[in-house]
Parts: sequence; structure tokens; C-alpha cells
Amino acid sequence: MRYLMTFSYDGSKYQGYQKQPNGKTIQEEIEKSLFKIAGNTAITIHASGRTDAGVHAINQKAHFDLDYKIEVDRLKHSLNSMISNDVYIKKIEIVENDFHARFDVISKEYIYKLNMGEYNPIEKDYVFQCCEKLDINEMMRGLKYLEGTHDFRSFTKVDEEKDFERTIIRTNLLIDSKNKNLITFIFVGTGFLRYQVRNMVGTLIEIGKGKKKSTDIIDILEAKDRRKAGITAPSSGLYLNNVDYSK
Amino acid sequence: MRYLMTFSYDGSKYQGYQKQPNGKTIQEEIEKSLFKIAGNTAITIHASGRTDAGVHAINQKAHFDLDYKIEVDRLKHSLNSMISNDVYIKKIEIVENDFHARFDVISKEYIYKLNMGEYNPIEKDYVFQCCEKLDINEMMRGLKYLEGTHDFRSFTKVDEEKDFERTIIRTNLLIDSKNKNLITFIFVGTGFLRYQVRNMVGTLIEIGKGKKKSTDIIDILEAKDRRKAGITAPSSGLYLNNVDYSK
Repeated sequence: MRYLMTFSYDGSKYQGYQKQPNGKTIQEEIEKSLFKIAGNTAITIHASGRTDAGVHAINQKAHFDLDYKIEVDRLKHSLNSMISNDVYIKKIEIVENDFHARFDVISKEYIYKLNMGEYNPIEKDYVFQCCEKLDINEMMRGLKYLEGTHDFRSFTKVDEEKDFERTIIRTNLLIDSKNKNLITFIFVGTGFLRYQVRNMVGTLIEIGKGKKKSTDIIDILEAKDRRKAGITAPSSGLYLNNVDYSK
Repeated sequence: MRYLMTFSYDGSKYQGYQKQPNGKTIQEEIEKSLFKIAGNTAITIHASGRTDAGVHAINQKAHFDLDYKIEVDRLKHSLNSMISNDVYIKKIEIVENDFHARFDVISKEYIYKLNMGEYNPIEKDYVFQCCEKLDINEMMRGLKYLEGTHDFRSFTKVDEEKDFERTIIRTNLLIDSKNKNLITFIFVGTGFLRYQVRNMVGTLIEIGKGKKKSTDIIDILEAKDRRKAGITAPSSGLYLNNVDYSK
């Protein structure tokens, strides 16, 4: 029986989503509880993709298999009662046996929160404290140049990855209605390279500061050279907001 | 020279504001940095009052004395560069030598944030995750019975405190415009007893759940008995929002 779960997490105290030899990870946190529920049997969960250290998720998705059928609401309840309060299982549903939480992804949505105002210690792990006024219009123009299908080599760490082409379907930049200094970048794409969102945001911040122009995005994409883009924005502001499998 | 500083802090990893033999405190955090700035001289800061473990502040105030005059913006900048990122000094100003950050308080404002919706791990240390629909109108009626001058013995830990009379000047209950499950209680008063706000909120939550009626507040105040009121709401949702010294 294959199950798909939707979950949220506070990534601030984790070494990232994916299990690794050293440090706390979200995957391990969930698998530890599933191990007990499955009668001390190791259950591997397959997520839509990893998130890096300090990155949060509002709706991450992962599938896993159990030999038997279990009532999904009971399973959700059991898992939530055992798991760390940094993670919350929002929904579990039964899916087809050939469904795959990573391979079947149609699009993903990441959001990035940034504070242009005075440093706020209360939200430091959840909103990047940029604390500098940025040119919103120029950043919005920069965002538009990122949309579409491009080779995003300039926005990732070039290592084993072979195919750098990705499609950004939609972007947006929202200003909070109550706090005009709180802005949110939105990126919807077919998939993202490692550090791509944070590198795009870092570049947009430099555009917002006037260190780069929005049209520089065209040249940066063209260059296929990581050194041409801006810095990597901190993980604190980044959230995996949605994973879409439906047509 | 007497200085008054306004500061914010994330109280989630602290044993409270006030210095104590064991555990990290906000006061110690600030005094440690002032000690260095003042050339290894111990400087005591006098806050408007303490906040308990896990409680946050948006605008806490404290005064301290230095033998010499120092440019306040430079002092603010130096302090912020040395201090933990859980604390932020928003403003430092020079005040009269007889000003006292605690004794001169005219009113204080506390806010309490509560989530009636699905558990959210991302805000667990900053918004109480009640995760239950509450009767807003009945809680608002309950709030009104708390306003005015009363003996608040039913809402505090009865120990050394002698005078239990306090005045609540204004209360409110706001529903977030974007997230209808996020509510904020507001309490403005001349002063508050230990745990008073959290005990009032705990009682209002029981009213919101239908376990108590709003009119029960009248009896609870009358009883002067802690056992008549509700539970102590968790510290996570509580913020010292303002301290007022002006007429």
C-alpha cells in the first residue's frame, strides 16, 4: 500500500530535510516515528525533493509503503503524537502503487520572506532580516527575466548536476498589507536546482540595492557562470510552499 | 548620565528577562555587552518589569547609568553588534536623572497571539497553538468584564504580593485579516501581577471552548481564589508590546 503525506516543518534547527550521517534531519525525524508505528520495521520516505539546512516547508510531500492498509486519519494522529513538534503531518492519503513523490512532480512553489525594516529578533529564523530598503519595481522587473525556460547554471552550485535547464512558470513579489517592509518572493517552477531560489533571491536583493540592474539577469543567465550572479540569500526566509502533482 | 533603552527580544530560548543564578536571561545578555562597552565596569539595567521564561518583547524599556556622555546612536550600534541576535536595541535616549523605568510606568500593553487552526510548527514558539475553534463573541464579552479596577488575586500566583488591585484600561480581541484562525488579545493596564495575563487568557480560552461563561469572570474576580480561574496559557503567545511613560 502506498501512502502520500503532506507535512510542514520548522527547518531552523535541522541540517536539512535529507537523512545524513551527522546532524538532525526532518526525514530521520519522521522515519523514526514510522519505524515504531510499523512494528520496528524500517520505512523509507521518498520526498518531492530535499530542502537545505534552515529551510522550512509549509506543504512538503513524501510517499512511503506499508505492507498493510491502515486508516489514514489514525496514522496521521499517531505520527503527530510521536513526532517532534518541529514537524506536523497535515494529511495522509492512499495513492496508486506507481505514484512517486519525486518523479511525478509537475511543479513546485517556493516562497522567500524578507524584512526591509528594522531588525526583528522574533522572526530572525523565519524571515531574512535584510533591514535595507530595496527597489521593489526594479526587483519585479528582474523577476520577469527569470521566468521561462533557461539554463540556470549561473544560479546553482556546479557539481554533478548535468542538466541545468529548468522552467520557471510564474513569479511574483508581494508586499504585506500590514507591514510594508515585509515582502515575499514567489517562484513556481517545474523544478529547481540546488540553491537556485536562494541564489536568484540573492541576485534580486543586489538589484534591489542598486548594485545590479534588472536587465543584468539576461546577461547572468547567458553567462552560465555562478560568479556572475549575486550572493546566496540566507536559508531562514525560504519555504517550500507547495508541490503539485495534478495536471 | 541616565539612559533609557527600548528593545525587543525573542524569549523562546531564555529563562526570562530577569537575571538569575541558573539559565540564560535577557538582562544578563544586555549587561554582558554593556560591561565591555563601559570598560569592564558592571552596569545594571533597570527594566519596566520582568517577563517570564518564553515570553517575548516588542518594546521593552530599561534605564541604566553611565558616568559619561556617549552618543546614543553609536552606543545603540555598538550594543547591537555585540549582543545575541535574540535581542535588538531599537532606541537609546538620554533621560532625566530621576527617571525610573519601573516606577514611572503609566501603563503597559501586552498582546497574546493564538492559532485556532491546524498546528503550525513554524510559529510554535511565537503563537500559542490552541488548534481549536473558540467562540470569539463570548470571549470578547469576557474581556469586557476584566476591564476596570479589580482585585486580580484569582489571576495570579499568591505569594509575597500584598496588593492585588490593578486597573485594566483597555482590552481588545483582533482577528487577523488574512488568517481568520489567528487571533490577538490585547491588554492595556496600569500594571499586571505575575502570570496575570496568561491566567486571564487561559480563562478566556475556557470561555471560548464553552467550559466557562463570560459572566463567570465576575464570580472569579469576586472569589479572589486562583482555583476559580482557568489554566495558565503557555508563554509562547505572550509579548510585552509597549510601556508608556508619557501622560
